[in-house]
Amino acid sequence: MDIKVILVEPIYQGNVGSVARAMKNFGYSDLVLVNPCELSGQARAMSSHARDILENAITVSSIEEAVAGCSLMVGTTGITGTRFDLHLRVPGYSPSEIKERLLDMDGTIALLFGREDNGFTKEELKKCDIIMTIPTSEIYPVMNLSHAVAVILYEFSEMEKGSNPMADPFDMKLLYEHISELLADIDYPEHKREKTDLMLRRIFGRACLLPREVQTLRGVMRRMQKRSDVESEQDDNII
Amino acid sequence: MDIKVILVEPIYQGNVGSVARAMKNFGYSDLVLVNPCELSGQARAMSSHARDILENAITVSSIEEAVAGCSLMVGTTGITGTRFDLHLRVPGYSPSEIKERLLDMDGTIALLFGREDNGFTKEELKKCDIIMTIPTSEIYPVMNLSHAVAVILYEFSEMEKGSNPMADPFDMKLLYEHISELLADIDYPEHKREKTDLMLRRIFGRACLLPREVQTLRGVMRRMQKRSDVESEQDDNII
Repeated sequence: MDIKVILVEPIYQGNVGSVARAMKNFGYSDLVLVNPCELSGQARAMSSHARDILENAITVSSIEEAVAGCSLMVGTTGITGTRFDLHLRVPGYSPSEIKERLLDMDGTIALLFGREDNGFTKEELKKCDIIMTIPTSEIYPVMNLSHAVAVILYEFSEMEKGSNPMADPFDMKLLYEHISELLADIDYPEHKREKTDLMLRRIFGRACLLPREVQTLRGVMRRMQKRSDVESEQDDNII
Repeated sequence: MDIKVILVEPIYQGNVGSVARAMKNFGYSDLVLVNPCELSGQARAMSSHARDILENAITVSSIEEAVAGCSLMVGTTGITGTRFDLHLRVPGYSPSEIKERLLDMDGTIALLFGREDNGFTKEELKKCDIIMTIPTSEIYPVMNLSHAVAVILYEFSEMEKGSNPMADPFDMKLLYEHISELLADIDYPEHKREKTDLMLRRIFGRACLLPREVQTLRGVMRRMQKRSDVESEQDDNII
C-alpha cells in the first residue's frame, strides 16, 4: 500500500528528523511537510541514516496540496472527542482496525499528523475521511509525534497492495460536494446540516468506496434531487 | 501481563526520557536501568508527563539484578545474525509472534534493550530466553531505542494476563544448569557443547514452560544421567 506521511505544522525539528528515521526503518519514503518549523542540524541528527528522506521531503503550504492524489485521508489524533467536537472525532479507529478495512484495496493513503501541542484544528479534522487513534492509557494518552508515526508504520508495514483500486480522489470530492448540494436541495434543517454533512462524509470515507460505487451513489442522489424538484414544483403549483 | 522494561547501559539521556513517556502512554511503569548514563534535564524534558516513571526507575549494576523475579527474558535486537554469532540471534521472533506465544500465560516478562550503539554483548544475548526483532526494512533496520520500545509496548498492551502461571525463574535456572550438567555427563563433544547448550536453552525458553513441565523434564534428565552412569560403569568394567 502506498503511504504518504504528512506532518501538519510540526514545531520541533528533532521530531521531524525522528519521523524520517522511523519511515526509513519501515520502508517508507514519501514525507510531506505543511508549513514546518526550521529544519537544520538537529533534524538531520535525529534522522540518523534517513537523511535522504528528510532532504527529499516536500514542503507545501496547505493540507490540500499535501494530500493531492491520495485516495484516503487518515487523520491521527490522540485527543478523544470533547463535548463540543465529538462529531468531528468519532468514530476513531485503531491502526489495526484501519489495516483490516484497507485489506485488498489499492490506492495512496495520506497519513496526517497534527501539531505537537495543539493537534489539528476543527476545519482540518473535517477534511479527513477517517480518524485514527492509537489505543493508549487513559492516564497519559498523548504520544510523542515520532512514536505515533513509528507505531502506525509498524502496524501498516505488513499490509500488501490489494487488487481493488479505491475511487479516484477527484470523484470522491465531487461525491462530497454532491452530498452538500443534496442536503440543501431537500431543505435539510440548516442547524443540523453541517454535522450531518460531516457524518455522511465520514461514513463514505471509511467505507473506502470503489469507483463504481461512487457512480451509483451519485446516480441515486441525482434521482433524489429530481424527485425533490418535482415535488417542490407541485408544492409551488398548489400554492 | 506484567512487563519490566530494562535498558542496558543506555547512552543518551533523551532516549531514557522518551522511553519513560512511551511506557506511560501504554500503561506500563516498571523501568529498570542497568548502569545508565547521567540522567538530568534532557531526560526529564523528553519524559514529558511521565516524569514519575523516570523518577521511580530502579538503577542496578547488572542484568542479573535487573531480571530478578522475571519468568522470561526477552532480548530485543535490530541486528540480525552475522556469520559469527548466528546461533546467538536466531530464531528471532516478531513482537506479534511473541504475543501469540504468551497468550494465556501469567508471569513477569523482562523486555531487555541494548545500548544505542552496540546493542548487547554476546554474553548478554546468551542469557536471554527469546530474541525479539521488530520486522523492519532491510535497508535501514536500526530503530531509535524509544521507537522500538513504543512499537513493542503498543503490540503487547492489549495482551491480558492468562491463567497459566509460567515456571518459576529459579526452577528455570536449575533446569538450565541441569542441561549443562547433562551435556557434560553424556560426554557431548566439547567443541559443540556451548552452542547446543544455548540452543536447548532457547528452545525451552521460548516454549514458556509450565511448572510441572520443568519438573518432568528434570525427571527425564535425571533418568538419562542415571542410565549414562550405569553405562560408563559397564564401560569401565569392560576395560
